[in-house]
Amino acid sequence: MPPSLPATPEPGVRSLQRAIDVLALFDERHPTRTVRDVVDGTGLPKTTAVRLLATLEGRGLVSRVAETTYSCGPALLRWVRLAEQMWQVSPAARAEMRGLVDRCGETVNVYVRQGLDRVCVAQEEGTATVRSVVPVGVPLPLGRGATAKVLLAGAPPGLLDELAGGDPGLDPAARAALVREVDAVRSGGWAVSHGERELGASAVAAPLAGADGRVLAALSVSGPTSRFTDERVPGYVEAVRAAAQAISRVGLGPVGAFL
Amino acid sequence: MPPSLPATPEPGVRSLQRAIDVLALFDERHPTRTVRDVVDGTGLPKTTAVRLLATLEGRGLVSRVAETTYSCGPALLRWVRLAEQMWQVSPAARAEMRGLVDRCGETVNVYVRQGLDRVCVAQEEGTATVRSVVPVGVPLPLGRGATAKVLLAGAPPGLLDELAGGDPGLDPAARAALVREVDAVRSGGWAVSHGERELGASAVAAPLAGADGRVLAALSVSGPTSRFTDERVPGYVEAVRAAAQAISRVGLGPVGAFL
Repeated sequence: MPPSLPATPEPGVRSLQRAIDVLALFDERHPTRTVRDVVDGTGLPKTTAVRLLATLEGRGLVSRVAETTYSCGPALLRWVRLAEQMWQVSPAARAEMRGLVDRCGETVNVYVRQGLDRVCVAQEEGTATVRSVVPVGVPLPLGRGATAKVLLAGAPPGLLDELAGGDPGLDPAARAALVREVDAVRSGGWAVSHGERELGASAVAAPLAGADGRVLAALSVSGPTSRFTDERVPGYVEAVRAAAQAISRVGLGPVGAFL
Repeated sequence: MPPSLPATPEPGVRSLQRAIDVLALFDERHPTRTVRDVVDGTGLPKTTAVRLLATLEGRGLVSRVAETTYSCGPALLRWVRLAEQMWQVSPAARAEMRGLVDRCGETVNVYVRQGLDRVCVAQEEGTATVRSVVPVGVPLPLGRGATAKVLLAGAPPGLLDELAGGDPGLDPAARAALVREVDAVRSGGWAVSHGERELGASAVAAPLAGADGRVLAALSVSGPTSRFTDERVPGYVEAVRAAAQAISRVGLGPVGAFL
């Protein structure tokens, strides 16, 4: 939630938040949801859940597939096509991402910052059986992980304070550590993390810059911590930085114009 | 709006409706919108528009690209694969659609009914310079056009009354005409329309049936009225019906299981 919104939103804003929470329950593992799922997944009263589903159904954002079961609706198609056009990376950038997968064997992602979140907008999966797979388009915390630090390094000065002062907030030691790490990214041009967001998950990330040098996005390789050893990380860093520079040179794609 | 919702929705529902109205302003011709556009396009007060945009931005559904300019946001990407998986037609059905384009030269669409709307979920564009192009995923009225009548022919008995009694409603003569036309589709298995939804646009449509014979969707060819002459329409009818039967046989795809 952006800091400009009050902690207890007014009823209209709250309903919208809740409706987005309802839509967020639908994913590839859960293409349909019952009213009961929605009540359990959101904590909303059943009457509220039913009312929100009816409103979303009336606009085609969900579709009723049985008496109390819903899927995502066909009206989403209008926005997903637009979002894809808007947020797709260029074919040249995509080729660099695949090249990085070939060099490292690990999953390659492009993340952008959205307020106090980060969102993966492009992914090329790694080749190993045990690989990192994040959901594209799902907001993740900006305070954790190598990618987050790269995005923070490119964010406006006040943002780190907003993040540190947020809910739940950071204690002074954690805040100081985060500032140090972001400073290190600014001077070094890369970040590494182990198990910050998820135990056993590691990543190496570097900035994707626009023509003016501004950080537009972050490029990462990520995988199981057991493969991100002290011996291997330097090679990953070199490969990620080289790919990030190549993508910055060829252009990230339409999305670059909007970041 | 489904008939179960009151005519004057409560504030929470109204906010959600308004937020969807705001999102609906973004399309391929308008990938970005200013606050001013949103005010003009929705009739909302500026404070309301700003508040809705802030809430949507906080969840990544819109993205601020300049001080008062927004695009659709990367969080929409989370539903891309889901909506596509859910609503895509099968490769075999898609091949039949392309075959129908080859035979008629006109744009071929698959529509599904959603409440009192119809929504195009798949489109193969015609080959002529002047061709019909409808936006995929955008709800269109269920009372007008050949496709609408095919979908109404397969809808539950009460739906025609709901539609006729809706806002703005149909006068008795128009209602009687619609009932006659829907009956004609039920007996004949196809519909033709000229300029009902848009002046100069014609279409021929036929039902896509499930294994149990139920109408799941409608297949149409559409184009400029000047090419849908009395000489040509019988050939279009034959081609659309043949393709619709072929698609009903090979299966519409995942979407068929949810209709």
